[in-house]
This record gives sequence, C-alpha cells and structure tokens, in this order.
Amino acid sequence: MEYDSFDQLDLPNQTVTEPNPSHVLAFRRFSSDQVVMFNRVQCDEIRKYSDRPIIHNFMGRITAFDHFDLGADLDISSWDSYPMGFLLDRVGADETAQAHYLRQGDPDFQAFHHDLYRATSAGRWWVMEQQPGPVNWAPWNPAPLPGMPRLWAWEAFAHGAETVCYFRWRQAPFAQEQMHAGLLRPDRSPAPALAEAAQVAAELAEVPYVGTATAPVALVFDYDSAYAWESQPQGADFDYFQLVFDCYRALRRAGLSVDVVPKSVDPSAYKITFAPGLLTVPESLRGGLVVAGPRAGSKTEELTIPEGLGPDITDLSTKVTFVESLPPFAPMALDGGGAFIKWREAIETTDTVILRFEKGAPAAVRNAQMIYIAGWPDAAGWRRILEMLTEQAGLDLMDLPPDLRLRETDSHRFWFNYGPRSVTFHGMTLPAAGVLWESK
Amino acid sequence: MEYDSFDQLDLPNQTVTEPNPSHVLAFRRFSSDQVVMFNRVQCDEIRKYSDRPIIHNFMGRITAFDHFDLGADLDISSWDSYPMGFLLDRVGADETAQAHYLRQGDPDFQAFHHDLYRATSAGRWWVMEQQPGPVNWAPWNPAPLPGMPRLWAWEAFAHGAETVCYFRWRQAPFAQEQMHAGLLRPDRSPAPALAEAAQVAAELAEVPYVGTATAPVALVFDYDSAYAWESQPQGADFDYFQLVFDCYRALRRAGLSVDVVPKSVDPSAYKITFAPGLLTVPESLRGGLVVAGPRAGSKTEELTIPEGLGPDITDLSTKVTFVESLPPFAPMALDGGGAFIKWREAIETTDTVILRFEKGAPAAVRNAQMIYIAGWPDAAGWRRILEMLTEQAGLDLMDLPPDLRLRETDSHRFWFNYGPRSVTFHGMTLPAAGVLWESK
Amino acid sequence: MEYDSFDQLDLPNQTVTEPNPSHVLAFRRFSSDQVVMFNRVQCDEIRKYSDRPIIHNFMGRITAFDHFDLGADLDISSWDSYPMGFLLDRVGADETAQAHYLRQGDPDFQAFHHDLYRATSAGRWWVMEQQPGPVNWAPWNPAPLPGMPRLWAWEAFAHGAETVCYFRWRQAPFAQEQMHAGLLRPDRSPAPALAEAAQVAAELAEVPYVGTATAPVALVFDYDSAYAWESQPQGADFDYFQLVFDCYRALRRAGLSVDVVPKSVDPSAYKITFAPGLLTVPESLRGGLVVAGPRAGSKTEELTIPEGLGPDITDLSTKVTFVESLPPFAPMALDGGGAFIKWREAIETTDTVILRFEKGAPAAVRNAQMIYIAGWPDAAGWRRILEMLTEQAGLDLMDLPPDLRLRETDSHRFWFNYGPRSVTFHGMTLPAAGVLWESK
Repeated sequence: MEYDSFDQLDLPNQTVTEPNPSHVLAFRRFSSDQVVMFNRVQCDEIRKYSDRPIIHNFMGRITAFDHFDLGADLDISSWDSYPMGFLLDRVGADETAQAHYLRQGDPDFQAFHHDLYRATSAGRWWVMEQQPGPVNWAPWNPAPLPGMPRLWAWEAFAHGAETVCYFRWRQAPFAQEQMHAGLLRPDRSPAPALAEAAQVAAELAEVPYVGTATAPVALVFDYDSAYAWESQPQGADFDYFQLVFDCYRALRRAGLSVDVVPKSVDPSAYKITFAPGLLTVPESLRGGLVVAGPRAGSKTEELTIPEGLGPDITDLSTKVTFVESLPPFAPMALDGGGAFIKWREAIETTDTVILRFEKGAPAAVRNAQMIYIAGWPDAAGWRRILEMLTEQAGLDLMDLPPDLRLRETDSHRFWFNYGPRSVTFHGMTLPAAGVLWESK
Repeated sequence: MEYDSFDQLDLPNQTVTEPNPSHVLAFRRFSSDQVVMFNRVQCDEIRKYSDRPIIHNFMGRITAFDHFDLGADLDISSWDSYPMGFLLDRVGADETAQAHYLRQGDPDFQAFHHDLYRATSAGRWWVMEQQPGPVNWAPWNPAPLPGMPRLWAWEAFAHGAETVCYFRWRQAPFAQEQMHAGLLRPDRSPAPALAEAAQVAAELAEVPYVGTATAPVALVFDYDSAYAWESQPQGADFDYFQLVFDCYRALRRAGLSVDVVPKSVDPSAYKITFAPGLLTVPESLRGGLVVAGPRAGSKTEELTIPEGLGPDITDLSTKVTFVESLPPFAPMALDGGGAFIKWREAIETTDTVILRFEKGAPAAVRNAQMIYIAGWPDAAGWRRILEMLTEQAGLDLMDLPPDLRLRETDSHRFWFNYGPRSVTFHGMTLPAAGVLWESK
Repeated sequence: MEYDSFDQLDLPNQTVTEPNPSHVLAFRRFSSDQVVMFNRVQCDEIRKYSDRPIIHNFMGRITAFDHFDLGADLDISSWDSYPMGFLLDRVGADETAQAHYLRQGDPDFQAFHHDLYRATSAGRWWVMEQQPGPVNWAPWNPAPLPGMPRLWAWEAFAHGAETVCYFRWRQAPFAQEQMHAGLLRPDRSPAPALAEAAQVAAELAEVPYVGTATAPVALVFDYDSAYAWESQPQGADFDYFQLVFDCYRALRRAGLSVDVVPKSVDPSAYKITFAPGLLTVPESLRGGLVVAGPRAGSKTEELTIPEGLGPDITDLSTKVTFVESLPPFAPMALDGGGAFIKWREAIETTDTVILRFEKGAPAAVRNAQMIYIAGWPDAAGWRRILEMLTEQAGLDLMDLPPDLRLRETDSHRFWFNYGPRSVTFHGMTLPAAGVLWESK
C-alpha cells in the first residue's frame, strides 16, 4: 500500500482481500476521464469540418462516467427514455409499485433524468430514444397504458426538451430487436404510439414554446460522489443515486420543480439547494440555504477521513463521531414522525439541533444557512425536513396525490397523471395517463 | 450480422451485447443434430452385429436435443423417473405443492414424460430407472410414502411401459451414490421398495396386458419450439416446457388421457389437438379440431417475424399486433373467470371471438376447426377453454379432486391417488398412494 | 475410481459429475494437515530462539482446518470476536433475530467459540480482536448497544480468557479499514468503547481470578466430521457446525455451562457428553452418559457405509435403514412435542425406545449409558431430550428468558443480558447489556 513510483501501481483488483478504496476511486476517475477524452477527440475532429451541433445519447441511472464532463464537449445532451423497461430493471421499485406503474413507468424517474441531462450541456437537451411500446430487453415487457407515449413526450417538453425522437420508426422483423416496438409495426402499419406522436405534434402548435424557468429548488448530482460511495458503500444498500433520487421524489411529491445541478452551483440562485451524500462540500456551496448530509463532507478528495473528522463544512460546528449502516428491517424513528433508513450518524454539535431521534440524539442541525441531515430520511422524514424549511425559504408545499406530478415552466404549469385511474386535485380531474397544461 | 461466407460464422456467444436469436436457434439445431448423429453412428455399428432391440434412456424436462429425432434411431425409448427428486429440483412447484407432494412427486410430471417418450420410438418404451427410495442428488431427499413405488410402476404400465426397472438393485456402500436407495439396502437386506416391486410383479399376472388406447386428445411437444423460445424468451419466465405442461395438467385434471405427439400429428385422429407455443404451424396440422397459441406461428422457421405478421396459420384471419410479457404479479383477467399469465397478445381479427379479456379485448378466436388462444392461460383459464370445446368435440370433462388422476387404456381404467390422504370420488375410495383399476 | 498408483490421483475437482466424497474428505484432511504443518514449521523456528508463549488467532465458524491439531502447537489459542458482524454474515439467524440482536450479537455465538478455543490449546486462550464498535466488512455495520463492549469482555473472562484485546486501538483515517471502529476515534479522541474497556479493567481488580470450572456437560466438536458432511451433505442445509451449535444453544437456554471438547474426551468426567453428527464414534467415547446422533457412526473413517449399517456404536443394537433429509417446510413432529428438522433416520432397534415420532416410529433409543437421537431436533426437541436425562444425570435445568445467559466458573456465577431491554429472573434484574456476577 506504499508506492515508490507510479510504475508500481496496478489495477485495483485481484488483491488479497479488498483493494484500497482510495485506489478504486482514483481508477474510477481515470476511467471517466478516458471516456470524456475519447468523446472529445471525436468532437474536435467533427468541428474541424462542421458547425452543426453535436449530440450524443446517455442512458438511465448510469454513473460509469461524469456526464457533466462529457456533456461540456457536446452541444446538446440527450438520453434514451424507457419508462417501463427501467421500472422493472433499474428503478428499484418494490413489487407493489411495479404492479401499479407497470404500464406507465415510475412517476419520477424520467423527470429526474430530464432535469439531470438538461444541466449537462448548458440547457440544451433531447430525448434521443423514447419508448413507444413493449421492448425486448426488460425482464418483462408490457405495453404502455394508452396515453402514456403522449404523456412521456409532453413531460419531456415541459422539462425543456427541444426534441423527442421515438425509437424505433419501424419494428424490425428480424434480429435481436425484432420484439422492440416502433411507431410502425413490422408490417408497416401504424403501431398504437404513432397516433399519440401525431397528437403531440399537433398540440405542440398550440403550445409552441414553454421555456425553462429556473426552478425554486436545486438538487446537486455529483458523479464523483457516486464513485466514492461505490468504492466504499459501508452498507449493502448504500447507493448514491438512490439517495439523491429519494430526495428528488420528496421534492416532486411536494409539487416543486427541481433543477438538478453540479456541485459548482451557486446556492444564492435558489430558495433551497439540496446536496445529500456529497463526498466533499466545496467552499462555493454557500450564499443560500443549503441542505447537506448525510455523509456530506465526510471524506477528503482522496477518500480518507479528514483531520478533525467530518463533516468538513465551513460554518458547521458538528462532528460525526461514528456512523451506522442499517439493514432494511431496522429503521431508526425520528421524534415526531418519519425515520432514517440505511444510514445514520452519531454527532457532537454546538449547532442548533432542528431534528432529533425518538430516543433523543440529534438527527439534523443548522447554523445560519447551512442545514446538515445526519442520516438517510425515508419519505416521511424528507417531508418533515421540507416542512421545517419552507416558511423561511418562502416555498409553498403541496401534498400531491401519489400519481400526480407538476412541472412549472416560464409560461405554463403542466400536470401529469402517472396512475392507471383518473385523479382529482384542487378541482382538476386528469384521466389515467392524462396531461393538462395551464398558462401561468 | 451480414455474412459473405460460412467461414465468417462464429459460435453465437461472446458478442458485444446479445447474439442474434436466429443464430442461437441455428446453433441449437446443429447441436441437436450432433447428438442424434452420435447416437446413430453407434446404433448402426450395433445393428451390424445384433438384431436385439436398442434402448437408450432419457431424463425429465430436458430440451437439449430433439428426442423424436434421436428416438427414431432406437427401438425402444426409455427414461429415468425420479418423482421426488424432480419435484424439488425441476418441476417448478411452489412451496405449498412441494410440501404436499414431498413423498409422492408431482401428480402429472411422470405421466407427461411417459406419454412423451411413448411417442419418441413409435410406441415402445420403458422406465429404465425408477426411484425406489431417497436419492442423493436432490436439494433434499425424503423417502416415498409407502405405496408410491408400486403406484409409480403401475402408472408407467398404464401409460404403456413394457418394463419398469428400479434403480438401483442394491444401495452401494461407497462412492458418490452411497446415499442412493436401491431395492436392497447396503447390507443386502430388502429395502422398503422391494416388497412393492414384488407386489407389482404379482399383480401384473392379474392384469397381464393393458394395451395403449389412442387417447381422445393430443398435445404437441416440439423441441424446435423449445429452442426458439429459449433463444428469444421475451419474458423472464416464458418457458415452452412449462406452457405445454400447464396444458397437460389441465387436461389431466379433467380426467382426460393424452397422447403427446410431434407436430407432424394428423389432427383427424383426435377429438382435439392442442398445440400451444409452436414456432411455426405446419399445413398438415389441419383436418381436426386444433387449439393453437399463444405464440403459435408467430415466427418463420428462422425466427423472424413473418410478412404480414403472425400467427401464420392457414384459415385464420387474425393478426397479433403486439405482445406483452407479464410479471407474476400482473395477470390479466378474462371475462367470466380465469386469467392469462406471463404472456398475452393483442389481436386484430375477423374470426369469431370466443373469449374476451375482462376489459373487452379478444382473448381467443375461432375459424371452423382452428382455435387460437392469444395468451398463456392459468388453470382456471384452461378449464374454461376446455369447457367451451367439449360439447362439440364430444368429450366428457370430469373435475377430479386435486390429487386423483385417471388413465384409460384399451381394456382398463386406472385411478391413482397422488395425495397423502385417502380420496373419495364417484363412490370410489382410494387410500393414500392408492392404485385402482377396473375393466372397461 | 480405481487407482493403481498414487500418481494417478488428481485433485477432487473438475470431474464429469461430482467427485467421490471419500476423495473430497481425503483432500480436506490433507489440506488441514498442510495448514497445521505450516504453522508448526514457524513455531519450531521461534522456539529455537524464544521461550515466550506462541499465540495465533482463529475466527468464527471456520471449519477449513482442524483447530485442535493446530492449537496443539500453540501455547495459547485466540480468536477474533465480532458479535455484530457475525450476526449478519454467518450466524444464520433469521430476520427477526437479526433485528432483535442487531446491536448485541447472537447470545450464544461468542460463548460457543470461547468454549471451543479454550479447548484447542489445553485451556489457555485469549480474545485477540474484540469488536469495539461498527466495522467495515459486514453487510450492514451498526454500533453496539451501550454496555455490550463491556459485556463481551466479561463474557470472555467468565469463559476463561486470559486477555481480551480490542481491535483496533485507533480508527485509521485511511485505507480499507477506515470505517472500522477503534477504542480511539480517527481524531485520537476516545471512542465510546474506551470507557467500557476502562471500566472492565477497573472491575477486574474486583474479581481478579475466576478460574475455569469443569462444566457439568461436554459437547464434542470434531473438524473431521465437519469435513465429512461438507463432502456429502445429502440435504442442502445439513451443516455440522449448525447441528452442534443448535445443541449448544439448547444447553445454554437450560442454564448449563458447557465444555466444548474433542472426540477423544473421557465421558466419565461429565454428567452428560453430547456428540451429535460424529462421522465415527470412537470406543473411548464410553464410561459416562453419552448422547450421540443423528448421523453418528453412520460411516467409516473413509466415508463409506459400514458393514451391517450404522450407527457403528458399541453396545447399541440399532440400525439406520434409511435416512431422509427434510426441507425447511417439512419438519417431522415428535410424539409429545418438538420435532426433527432437516434430517431424520428410520431405525430398526432392540434398544429401549425413549422418544417416538407422532406417527409412532422410534426417534431416540437408549442402551445403558448410550443414547442415540435419530434426527436433528428443533429447540423444543432438544429441550425434551434434556428433560428426559437430567434426573438420572443429576442436573438442574433452568428455563432462562430468551436473552439471558449464565456461565459458572470455579468461584462465580456470571449472568449476561444479551437483550435490548432489562430482564428479570429469579428476583434479579439485569438492565439491557447488563452483566452480574455473584460468588458461589
């Protein structure tokens, strides 16, 4: 574990027991840089001969490389949105949720990636592949609830997409993708999604431009932190993406539109900036209300424990003295409702304690604009944290029905019903798979 | 994926993503042919020097090669019947069924293979290895309920076996099979099954020949279709053997004797011919009442989608426009009872709709003698399909108690109680593990 | 499988189906001997230059080599005790038990290994690594209930430990073990366990020497038998360690202190000697009350079935005619309460039947001082066997509350509360994680 020269360094695998997590993290960064470099070489070549915008497509829940780094070399980020396939193979939904959303997809998963990839190329983004029907690669491959191909497209536009491309045009009658639906059937007749795509095209004329308002809240997504906790999870189910996504879902359930941002964000531009699970908390993450933790600033850039213990966050007088990873059957209840799941930290603090465990220990603290959450909140826990902050932040929280989602743009308010039945809320009724927009 | 010469073809593995399913299917056919050829070379050599019948033994639920092709070179097909071992390692029974049938085996699994292997060598077949007691290779190895070694033997004879051999004669006191029961214990004393074997031998004198009546219904088993759907399952639990076996169980629960047949069968010889899951439906599969589907004729011989969509079945005016594979928690209810599980097809049709989903879409159609089932029926679904057809087919359906089974031969009617408790039906009472025969 | 010379012998792997279990057993013995030899070479070298005691540390639930053989070359055996990590990764506890004992560890697992490793070097033993807080390697890593680091240390002393070392002194701020708690935090401040270690050190002055009384009952642990049943389990969950540990837990629930011993033990030194699952039962295992079985003496030293069938135990007139391994959902009830799980034997016997199955077959027999149990008892089954024997053996059985444990030494009686809540028993009240001692 001590090296005299760079030549002594091997790949961080095939070690006697486990490799050094700092070594693994370094390798993950190197690998990401290689991907970014490979893309850059191609972009540079293309730009010698063309000034047309360069687009490339990303996927769902992929943390193998830094999409902000790569997206900086593109003109337009795009991604492949397969709501039903992803529900069954990567969202992590339980069986009840998989049954309920089987033909619609998870109500937050697409929106999260729309908001994430909107940020990776300075605001320009597309959906490069939109699922039009059953595909061939998920464990099971049902067909969308009628209306969902339209809803998915409108949701993308509401989040700022310039273009939504359905994949594929025609279902190929041969080879690996012959069971992957298209807008046309293998016999060249219209498949069900074609009429929905046509309907969206007609409706776009009616709502030609919706803009992309700055959302009231920001949520930091940091690929480097994903590498770090994959290198050293400490609990079998500690997953950085899931932690950020849980926060995102809580914000959406409260009716809030969200900007997903890199950790270089300026918090003064938002009413609240959420930054759960950041490996390190940069000095620049100040100047507005910030909610950090758990695990935020708990390590150095090289994945070691900082001198004086974490969280290494300026202004906080709080130390994490030990942490516990918690199995699914052992949540820790919070005083007044909600719980921490998967992860909790024991802290020593002279900051203001704003949340406690049922047994009394501090669970969240605050000093001026910086809030620190010493654990992984469940849905009720996130809701309580939001409620504590909204008055000061000047935010209105809704309590949306489970299947309903809202997205606000410069000009409009869009409502989406991800449920298989109609939903009524504040006098509005949306049918199953319904979309509704109203001018602001 | 485009080849200029045969030399460019590799094995269908180690591809960047998945191999072309048509390539996998071709490889499966090639592999089967190799097995068949290897057997043929040996048969040809033996026949130069002997006119004694050639026998070889098959196993349970093996679709690695075409047993009809191989059986054509044998004089007698045989198989190794391990009812209790198979219950725990390959039947696919749930825990409730495993507990109930723990010491008896599945009530249909043996019969299915008896009926299958009776067909693979033109009617001559044996049980080469009959489980006499606990074996050494299943996850757990209980002992048979007293009476079952007799029942298993009689069941084989009722299905036309010429011979039932128990394996093994004596339990070896050494090596891998030392925990595999025989008719003798390791100390050469009689093991429990010996008396049952002797009883069967004595009883055979009483019922010397039972014949093998042609059954009223035929059920097609097609190894080529098994290869096809293993190459392209489209749903994680789509298994061709299971689909055919579900149909077989439904027929048996209705008291019907069944001939398992290759797809070259002449349907005019049967009151109904069932052909679920056939890759392609041959022209010859006409001339009698045929129940095809799901997935029947949905592909070409080379596993591509046929021009004009499937099912490619003469006389039907039905097209499958898309399919859905369904997770275990998402069955689709049929109007009037029963459901489709695992698989359902959306169809356009001008044939007569004879069954609908609860929500109205057509679930089965008919044109003259050809019925098409657009999904994978559960037990209640199969029962409903049978009930719709029996009057016209001139069949009497029974509703047997869950543990009771019936097999009709030329001369006798055999009843088997696979349950751990006695069963009374139509005035008959069979004890646990009981066998009863009556002349017709 | 027949060899003309030793040179023909390969490793027992990569065989066409499974290797010969006798071959596997021979390889396991060879492997153990290699480990023992490797240690011996080092001990011999050290002893040329030093007369200081030689210690080496073992782990929990490891049957890879014979610890009695290796321990014979050490002066002091020691082991690494991680009660919370082991609860989640190797005890085999169900989810309810994992939740209940999450921050305390299994109430018998540490004691078992204390009693085992006390025997491997003629009575001298240490805890080389005692878990002081959350570690980094279990699936989840919670923190101990306050008081447990003290309880664990006192439990070790009560079982005869000369020394308890906590691992580690300071939590390292870098590399693989940076999340492994120490007595000091990474910032060199005291971690919670330090005060508990200091308390134990102060209390030791109060109870300076407790001695190691010979326990009233002995329990044989035999690594050779572990190899044998790993080579030929016959049931998916037949695990020799688990069988012995189940017996140990039953004895502890009855308030008995236990000596874990090799099979060379002299039974006349104990009121009862338990020897479940012994591959072979030596002639020397006579002269006191012995409880053998299941599977005891069922094989020869070379893992074949003995002439005349097992159990090959002098004085017993009992033969096992066949065995059944039982899945978790199929226990076999005993007449009067309790059941056999996982394993039961059918026996022919002229010995006295002392326990029967609910359906009448003999389940345990006795001839003079030798008792044979023809199955794997569940907790209630072990309790019934104990109750049948204690009057004659002159033992008093307690029925301890589930979380309470007792250990008797030469001079003291120690009580331990492994539960998360206080326990009252016979007028004593122990708080959660409480330890109580009283002079005898």
